[in-house]
Parts: sequence; C-alpha cells; structure tokens
Amino acid sequence: MSFEQFSVIESTLREGEQFSTATFSTDEKLEIVRLLNEFGAEMIELTSPLASPQSEADVRAITRMVRAEKMQTRILTHIRCKREDAVRALDTGVHGVDVVIGTSPQLMQHSHGKSIRQVIDAAGEVLSYIREQAPDVVLRFSTEDSFRSRPADLYRVYLAVADLGLVNRLGVADTVGVALPSQVSALVGQLVKLTGLDIEFHGHNDSGCAIANACAALEAGATHIDTTILGIGERNGITPLGGLVARLYTIKKSYVAKYNLKLLPRLDQLIADICDIDIPFNNYITGSSAFIHKAGIHAKAVLADPESYESINPDDFGITRGISIGHRLTGWNAIRNRANQLGLTLEDTTVQQVTQTIKARADVQPLSLPEVDDLLIAAANGVFE
Amino acid sequence: MSFEQFSVIESTLREGEQFSTATFSTDEKLEIVRLLNEFGAEMIELTSPLASPQSEADVRAITRMVRAEKMQTRILTHIRCKREDAVRALDTGVHGVDVVIGTSPQLMQHSHGKSIRQVIDAAGEVLSYIREQAPDVVLRFSTEDSFRSRPADLYRVYLAVADLGLVNRLGVADTVGVALPSQVSALVGQLVKLTGLDIEFHGHNDSGCAIANACAALEAGATHIDTTILGIGERNGITPLGGLVARLYTIKKSYVAKYNLKLLPRLDQLIADICDIDIPFNNYITGSSAFIHKAGIHAKAVLADPESYESINPDDFGITRGISIGHRLTGWNAIRNRANQLGLTLEDTTVQQVTQTIKARADVQPLSLPEVDDLLIAAANGVFE
Repeated sequence: MSFEQFSVIESTLREGEQFSTATFSTDEKLEIVRLLNEFGAEMIELTSPLASPQSEADVRAITRMVRAEKMQTRILTHIRCKREDAVRALDTGVHGVDVVIGTSPQLMQHSHGKSIRQVIDAAGEVLSYIREQAPDVVLRFSTEDSFRSRPADLYRVYLAVADLGLVNRLGVADTVGVALPSQVSALVGQLVKLTGLDIEFHGHNDSGCAIANACAALEAGATHIDTTILGIGERNGITPLGGLVARLYTIKKSYVAKYNLKLLPRLDQLIADICDIDIPFNNYITGSSAFIHKAGIHAKAVLADPESYESINPDDFGITRGISIGHRLTGWNAIRNRANQLGLTLEDTTVQQVTQTIKARADVQPLSLPEVDDLLIAAANGVFE
Repeated sequence: MSFEQFSVIESTLREGEQFSTATFSTDEKLEIVRLLNEFGAEMIELTSPLASPQSEADVRAITRMVRAEKMQTRILTHIRCKREDAVRALDTGVHGVDVVIGTSPQLMQHSHGKSIRQVIDAAGEVLSYIREQAPDVVLRFSTEDSFRSRPADLYRVYLAVADLGLVNRLGVADTVGVALPSQVSALVGQLVKLTGLDIEFHGHNDSGCAIANACAALEAGATHIDTTILGIGERNGITPLGGLVARLYTIKKSYVAKYNLKLLPRLDQLIADICDIDIPFNNYITGSSAFIHKAGIHAKAVLADPESYESINPDDFGITRGISIGHRLTGWNAIRNRANQLGLTLEDTTVQQVTQTIKARADVQPLSLPEVDDLLIAAANGVFE
C-alpha cells in the first residue's frame, strides 16, 4: 500500500486538453500550473511539443517559470514512442518524459501498426536515446490500453523495458475505461513484484470506476496516479483530482493532508470557467449538492453531529454545509433547530404542528427559509393555526 | 456472481426525492414510473407514505396505475422500522416494503437512539407484524450505515433477522459513501453464505465508488442494486442507473440486454429538466462529451474502427459519436478522412500541409468544421497556401 507515499501526476494540461471544449491559452496554462503547484501537485504533465507551435512554446514557458521560481512541482511531457518526439521533448528542458505506446490488438492494428516485437524494439531505441541524452531526466514508459492487451504481450513488454534498467517508472493505462478494481490490483501488484519500479496508473471513467481503480492501484503498491481537474479528458475523462482526494480522505484524512485542500474549489471553478462547462451538480466535494442534507432523519442527525451523515468535513475545503428544511420530507427536529436559531421558544407539540403545515404546503410548492421562519414566528406569537 | 440475474431497485422516487432540488408532482411521478417500466426497471421504490399527505396519495396512485395497467415493474415503499410506518405502508397496497434501521454507532446515537438489542427487537416486532398482515408482500430488511457499523453488531442483527424466516431480502447500505469495493465484496459474500437470502446493495457516491461498489456487490452474489436516474439523492447521490448500465455493458453487453437502452437519454433528460439541473458534462453515456474523440491519434483510430477507443457503442443508446478535428491536437489522418467525406481527392502531402495550418491557426482559436472544410476545398482547388 502506498497511500502514505504517492504522487499525483496532474494531467489537466495534457489529458485535460483532449477534453472536447478545452483550449488553454499560454496565460491560462501558467495560471493552472501556479495553482496546482500551490495545491501541492507533485508533477504536472503537458501536451507534447509536437502537437502545435504554441504547445511547444508553452512547454518551454512553463518549464522556465517552474525553474525560475523554484517551484516544488515537476514538469513532464507526454510523447509517442518515437525518436523525433524524444528529440523535441528533451530540447524543451522538462524534468521528465512520459513515453507511451499501445499494446492492445485494437491499438496495434489501428493506431501505430506495430507488432509486439516491434513495440519492444521501438521502446528500447527511444528509451536508450533519451537516457543517453539526458541521464537525469525522469523517464517513464507506459503501455496504452493495458487492460485490453493480451497478458502475455503486456508482461513481455514490461519485462523487456524493466530489464533495460533505463526507466524510473512504468505506467499502466485503462485507456477505454473498462478495468475493474480487482484487475487493476492484480496487474499493479504483479508489476511491483516483478520489476520493483515505481508504478503509475492512468484510468478513464467510461464505466465509472476511475476513482475506485486509482485507489485499487495505490492499495496494490502503485506510486503515481494520473488526475485532471474535474476529471476532464478524452470522452468523459479520467480520475478527477477532487475525486481522488475525496476517496483517500474518507479512508484516512492524513493521506491528503499534504495538499492545500482549500484550493480545490478554486481549481475546479477555474477549469469550469475556462472550458465553459458547469461543475457537475454531483461533483465530489465541490458539487452544489455535495453537502446538502434534506430528509428529516438526516437533517436531525446532522444538526446533532455532522459526522452522522457526513464522511467528509466541508470545513476542510472551505465549504459550508446546507440543511434543507422547507420541503415535504422535512422533520420536526430540523424545524425545532431552526426555531432555536431564531431565538424562539416553542412547545414540541407546536413545532410538530408547524412541521405538518410545512409538509402539506410543500406538497404544493417547497417553502423558502423566510417562509418557514414566518410560520415559526407566527407560532411563537400564538397566531399560528 | 449475479451479473446474469439481478434486479434494479430504481429509487429516483425515494432516494432521488432526497436530492436538494427534487420535488416531483404526481404527474411527474407517474411519467417517471411509466418510463422506468418501459426501460425495464424491475422494481421502483417510493418515498414513505408518512412523509406528507401528497406522498401517501402518490404511493396509492402509482400502485393503482401499475396494477391497473398490468405493468411488469413492482412498487416498493421505504419505511422506518416502526409499526406505525408498517401499518400505513401496507394500507397503500404496494407490492413490497423496504424496512431500514441504523446500526452504526453514529446513527444509533443521533438518529433513533436504540441499542443493538433494541434494534433486533424492533426488527422482530415490525417484520412479524408485516408478515402476519401481508403474507405475500415482498419484505426487505436493511441496516443503515452498514459500513461504519461494528461487524459484531451488524452480523448479530442480520443473523437474528434471517433466523425469523420472514424477509425475502437483506439490504446493505453504504450510507455516507465510504466503502471500498473489497469491503462490499467481503460483506455481501458473507451474507450470501450465511443467510442464503437475496441481497440488495445501496451505495452513496461521496468518495466516487458507488458504481464500483455496486459491481463488487453483484460479483459477490448480491441480487439487487439500488439506483437513481443521474444518481440523484442525499448529498451527491448514489449509484446512477446509467452508470451501472455502462459498467455492466463494458463487462459483457448481454448483462444489460434486458433493458430498453435507447430510453436512457430520455430518462436522464427528464430528471434533469424536472430538477432544473444540467446533465453533467462527463455523465456516463449521456454526458455531452461521452462519445467525443479529440486527439489526432484517437480520431485516426476511431475513424478506422470505433472500438479502438470506445468500450461502449453509442448506437446502442441512440447517440451519435463526435470526432473533433479543428483544434491544435488534430492529426492528418482525421483531416484526410474529412476530405474524403467531402468527396475531395488530395495528396497526402497536401493534407499534411493543411493539417499544419489548422494546428497553427487553432493555437489562436479552434476552427469550426466549416472553417476546416473551407481550407480543404481551397486545397483541392489548388488555392491553398
């Protein structure tokens, strides 16, 4: 288990740029890097310099800023397993290079057209070139679509690469979002045992397991998890930074104590604004409903002790919880609590009467808080009927 | 494993009503039930008739409609472990009653104030009453907050209830969204072994594992999964119906072949409209980005074979995929494909030139499809520079 010691590879500026509405200007990229560095993201992955002229200029500008301002975060760029890509990547001065190549039958046929033998040869050539040119660069090799790859192919590739003794880290990628936590755990566990190298997990969320899979990877000994802010990426994206934080926090709060958690709402809002999307109503921690308690039983218990129905304390993220009381599912304990907040002293039977009135009226239309207050004040003045 | 034989307990009209902005009118409830029945939801759970006068009237109206129109779906209502609740529930004529009581230290203290001995006694009294009054009603007993309950308490309660021989189904609930798939698997597996009863899983999504946990429950032998449309519920909600479908589909499409999948977009949109929320951009299957392919490598491969980067076929849900090509991450294969669609014949070197122009211009501002087309038409007419 590496919950105590893991790093985030924050890929909003690589995987995230592959999200349908994401186009980051240079200034926006610099702002995102600053904020992620302040948050505590250990590594930040950028789009390949080969993607476009501005992409290359931005890799240089970001790396320059991070070095000049002695930021803690480390800058990586993500390239195909090609020598031309390696040449261009190294020329930018990044701290690390992430090399990727597809190993599933689907990608070997329709993406790069290589056999497994050719994949291993290409990896050997490109990794050797990088290590010769840059002995200190942090070097990662990842397969793509690892979970649809034939296990024999996959292990042949990983073992051949590990034997070269050139890379710092091996990557495992659930590229089309099909892996189950048990499968992630098995593959990562094997690679930890067989290679002793750092292991990175990259997981898409098509079938809703990107967070569970990242957690399973850490449980099995992975050291690095790829995230993006709000989870943006190809299709419906990957493990969201905030979702990973929520998952680890609920296991043990100290696992995420190294991060500046109060910056999470700003990070999520920044990306939503730039990409012209809304933060999903149900987003982890920062969604509009994440800390709203509604049913009477929940409201009553949360008023007595928030932990009764909360596994995450919103205060830790600078967020305020909400207790909704003007609806048909309300309960008299929540209404009594509101009366107390207003400084009103009411008999229990009166509060229960007011509650029944609220429920009946809310059956037609939910009541606003001032409307609930008016009923309570009327009851305190003896004019409630 | 019960992937081949499981039922959804669709709780949009119970758990979903506990979502902050959800208030369903009678007509809306009837429409939701009709559509869920058409979709193939095996069971539909409704808010307790004790919640409000309209809630009670609606349970009656829905049960009447389902019986009168001989719908396949079965109507359940969800009550506290109290005799008064049982009396009112049975009086509505529902097919099934779901009884729940908290067993975690947090809920025993702040919700109902009972000890484990008292919980067992209350369960015995209420379940016996229901079974005497209604020998044929489908009866479920669930603990609440199962994963923060002391294991000794939890098993004492489940075994005592199973020994009564009165219930059809036991429920397991991750009420505050803390469970890991491995924990769900262990608890469900034990209950299957120890009781032989049907097992239902209800999981909140605070830490992003509601889908993975539902899947782990089925893998361990659970027979029923609670879902809501879009996952709406207390706080950020529970396992979404569409998310569960996506998860099982990617394991084996036949697991969800029993459902009318093309209705999923309508279900999601209906709830979004009623609750005045947007379908999250990254929602499973129906989110705006779920089937958009952007990076050049992805676009190229998907054009050759969609399965290269898709684990779900959008056609099965009546949805169209999108391939985005006017941005800085585009590739020349995707551009060539667009030229072919336009009936243009261009040399590869020309297409590559056009691609470089698109990338450079997209560095400033992404191009619309007509702008890409204009460049290709100009190139075909020899006026591209």
